[in-house]
Amino acid sequence: MNKLHIIPLGGVMEIGKTLWCYEYNDEIIVVDCGLMFPNEDMPGVDVVIPDMSYLVDNKDKIRGVFLTHGHEDHIGAVPYLLKLMSVPIYGTALTLGFVSNKLEEHNLLNTAELYEVEAGDVLEAGPFEIEYFQVAHSIPDTCALIIRTPLGVIFHTSDFKFDSDAVNGYTIDFDRLKEIAKENIIALMCDTTNIEKPGRTKSEKVVGETLEKIINEAPGRVLIATFASNIHRVQQVVDICEKLGKKIGIFGRSMISNCRIAEVLGYLKIPDNIRIDESELSDYPEDRIVIMTTGSQGEPLSALSKIAAEEHKFIDIVKGDTVIISATPIPGNESYIIKTINRLFRLGADVIYYPLADIHVSGHANQEDVRDIVSILKPQKYFAVHGEWRHYKQFKKFLTDMGIDRDDIIGLTLGDVYEFNDETDPGVVDKIKAGAVLVDGIGVGDVEIGVLRDRKHLAEDGVLLATVTVDLSTKEIINNCEIIARGVIKEELYNKLFDPLAEKVDEAVEDFFIDNDKDDIDTLRSIVKKVSAKYIYEKTHRRPVVVPVVIEV
Amino acid sequence: MNKLHIIPLGGVMEIGKTLWCYEYNDEIIVVDCGLMFPNEDMPGVDVVIPDMSYLVDNKDKIRGVFLTHGHEDHIGAVPYLLKLMSVPIYGTALTLGFVSNKLEEHNLLNTAELYEVEAGDVLEAGPFEIEYFQVAHSIPDTCALIIRTPLGVIFHTSDFKFDSDAVNGYTIDFDRLKEIAKENIIALMCDTTNIEKPGRTKSEKVVGETLEKIINEAPGRVLIATFASNIHRVQQVVDICEKLGKKIGIFGRSMISNCRIAEVLGYLKIPDNIRIDESELSDYPEDRIVIMTTGSQGEPLSALSKIAAEEHKFIDIVKGDTVIISATPIPGNESYIIKTINRLFRLGADVIYYPLADIHVSGHANQEDVRDIVSILKPQKYFAVHGEWRHYKQFKKFLTDMGIDRDDIIGLTLGDVYEFNDETDPGVVDKIKAGAVLVDGIGVGDVEIGVLRDRKHLAEDGVLLATVTVDLSTKEIINNCEIIARGVIKEELYNKLFDPLAEKVDEAVEDFFIDNDKDDIDTLRSIVKKVSAKYIYEKTHRRPVVVPVVIEV
Repeated sequence: MNKLHIIPLGGVMEIGKTLWCYEYNDEIIVVDCGLMFPNEDMPGVDVVIPDMSYLVDNKDKIRGVFLTHGHEDHIGAVPYLLKLMSVPIYGTALTLGFVSNKLEEHNLLNTAELYEVEAGDVLEAGPFEIEYFQVAHSIPDTCALIIRTPLGVIFHTSDFKFDSDAVNGYTIDFDRLKEIAKENIIALMCDTTNIEKPGRTKSEKVVGETLEKIINEAPGRVLIATFASNIHRVQQVVDICEKLGKKIGIFGRSMISNCRIAEVLGYLKIPDNIRIDESELSDYPEDRIVIMTTGSQGEPLSALSKIAAEEHKFIDIVKGDTVIISATPIPGNESYIIKTINRLFRLGADVIYYPLADIHVSGHANQEDVRDIVSILKPQKYFAVHGEWRHYKQFKKFLTDMGIDRDDIIGLTLGDVYEFNDETDPGVVDKIKAGAVLVDGIGVGDVEIGVLRDRKHLAEDGVLLATVTVDLSTKEIINNCEIIARGVIKEELYNKLFDPLAEKVDEAVEDFFIDNDKDDIDTLRSIVKKVSAKYIYEKTHRRPVVVPVVIEV
Repeated sequence: MNKLHIIPLGGVMEIGKTLWCYEYNDEIIVVDCGLMFPNEDMPGVDVVIPDMSYLVDNKDKIRGVFLTHGHEDHIGAVPYLLKLMSVPIYGTALTLGFVSNKLEEHNLLNTAELYEVEAGDVLEAGPFEIEYFQVAHSIPDTCALIIRTPLGVIFHTSDFKFDSDAVNGYTIDFDRLKEIAKENIIALMCDTTNIEKPGRTKSEKVVGETLEKIINEAPGRVLIATFASNIHRVQQVVDICEKLGKKIGIFGRSMISNCRIAEVLGYLKIPDNIRIDESELSDYPEDRIVIMTTGSQGEPLSALSKIAAEEHKFIDIVKGDTVIISATPIPGNESYIIKTINRLFRLGADVIYYPLADIHVSGHANQEDVRDIVSILKPQKYFAVHGEWRHYKQFKKFLTDMGIDRDDIIGLTLGDVYEFNDETDPGVVDKIKAGAVLVDGIGVGDVEIGVLRDRKHLAEDGVLLATVTVDLSTKEIINNCEIIARGVIKEELYNKLFDPLAEKVDEAVEDFFIDNDKDDIDTLRSIVKKVSAKYIYEKTHRRPVVVPVVIEV
């Protein structure tokens, strides 16, 4: 029996997103290899990558990793994969440009096998044929993948939208799409990120028109914060600057780095005579200066956040500045963005932000875009991709309203093995190990739930150490109890709160010596802990992490 | 010279919100006394109250506290004020009902002087005359205050909206408003919360209509989460249940407590024959049950979050349940709400949430409501209240577009003393001590910036203790170094990471004994700290809080 497996391996919200595994009999291709950013339950964690155990266990079967586009959630885990195995990586030029930048940081560039692909290319990988198919998205050079197997065709949309007016001509070729629809499409892997949103996703061009109007009317400098990978948008601002006789400066680490890569590869064209750097900011009148910057999500270390906090090396907000936050908040970032907006207003800038003007459009398909691709392709099965559980449910609602059988609409959770074969009905046949691996510093997977629990506990009420030195043989306290604390209470109150506690601990130790077996240091430790925790709770109603440091000499 | 001072004392976003001080010569009235909830920079903090130093310093001048309505950000700090002084508290019945509940928890109810007021009442307080004026808001019994002084009238809107179709008849009396407009209104203290939103705020009735439709069509139980103080909405759901022959259960601590207070005071009427408790949930078919619950903001300890996490004592989600999140996210809560929604979907519920249906309306005035009150009252000065800096700026933009002189539009920050007098132009004349005081457990103000910094540091990378016992006189290590850690790395790796560190510390101590003055224990401590921090950073790129515990015997 021939078998085709679809296995989502990456994502933190259960539904497959960042890494997909397609397996035909004994051969595997991987589609995308991305990371996620930690949520509020993961303090100190830098990034979250997919558990790659299944790939490691089946490393000899893997014929290649096929990247759809250059966003972090699609390429960010490539370095971690390449530390585990050697495998060829395929992608379009800009995607590989961003990947190479990452690999360089991880000292992996020299050994990586990267193969550049163009939209329209068709590749062979074992029993798979993979066609790169141009779509519109918020980063140039995004492709859907048409994955042909002996059991049928998988259409993997990647992140996409239809954009009839797309900047740089990144539109979808509907004629070709209709051609493909004639093939035996057994699975549509569909971007459901915007399935809650009615209508069509607006064109990137709308943003350009709004930005031009704002830049043209602004009394002074204009600062524009957007996602550093949105090269289309940077190009639009560059074009506007050229048209209106403005100079443009690029700020923020990732914005500078991404623009450099995009320029080298020809995706971004900034004429030399309009580009300025930090040393030239004061060479031109303010109303001739436009600044592109990172920080559209209020990220604390971004250029815009530093500007708002008056901590940026080169840029101070002056009255008359206009700041445009050209993005919508990713859930969880709202309060950071609002903090930045309030600070910028306070410093005298005018701030234009969502939803006050058409200064951002999404890169994902709204409902009508989804309706189109579904209607054209009419696959056998419909899989929700790139969303959360709520998106899968709304996808199901939307498609059943279109008359599609609800049993044909599928939301796989990480590790589900969905099988097509040539004998029985398709369905989930297995569950393999999958999930999230936390990366903190250079540690991969050494921070797990217990560590996070401790960190959250520490964050709530701090930590308190009660140290006491004893001689168990003579039943004597050698050094009286000393209390050390961090994050419990302000230092001015240490003596008032901790001196009586130290006395209480000493008394408890003396009592222990009277009543107990002298060798039982573990009991003594737990007594010290209990006395300390109880006292602190009584006095403050706080429950710090209490560490009893009972030293025996 | 007679002087009238306007001083905002409460709010965390700089612009006055939770506590206002009006001072005429040597007499003061306080309007509202609320708290704020901590933001993401305040781990472990329970609530944030205004710095009341100015009130304490001027306690003999205070003639009373006048509450506008019963929301936490308007009444939550009353217990903290009453711990500092005795002062009469005025408010409408429901407001005082909620205040009493709080005072009881703080054991202050017996000594508090509470005076019940009705809309339309006019009170005297020193040189002030205070008229309570009915407005519509998301809690019953909300009043604006018309504050008459010898120097003119202050119109303090409180939180308000116009709601021509308001449930329970809480509408604004426009004729009376026009009468008031004839007085000498020198200051409009205007709710600017929704000033970014065009049009009019929708009526609470719209929510009722949507809820009725959903409840009527739901195949099984309906769970509705909303703000526990939105008694109007609870009443609407009760009425719908009565009409449709459903039973209603009330769940969630604050929902139960608020409903009880509102029922006792006659603001909420639940017929006995439709009300059920947890023991009766299984007595009726599922399509006859409606449940009101807390948790519309995804608060981790709320009833709905527990239900979503399968941790609620009485309620398990079953297939066919419909959950309505009848609220919009307060910025900062988005990711919690989304987590709850995803979990509920996962458990088989259908979830209806903003903005997918008209299941919530705001209690604050949108732009057109603001335009109305401004046009009717035509005050001398316009003050932005209850918003953030961005709201003040949008308020200014909106009013200047209406033709109002920008110099007459004022955003006071906490502690600003704005003066009207009978000789010179009005303006800010002073800045007094004001700001936020953090409450954690039973501690008020004993957690400040240093403690929060420690907590955030602990949350990022945990804490590591390096303990070593030495005899300085003999230059000997008595007990070798031991490492204790929390939140640094998973326990399975303790030996691998910490054994070599302990050795390194011992070596460093030995080296110290060779090179250094034996008495210098502080230097030894800093060496132990440095060696440990450096090692951990090299191995993990983490920077835990390192506490060197060097014991001398």
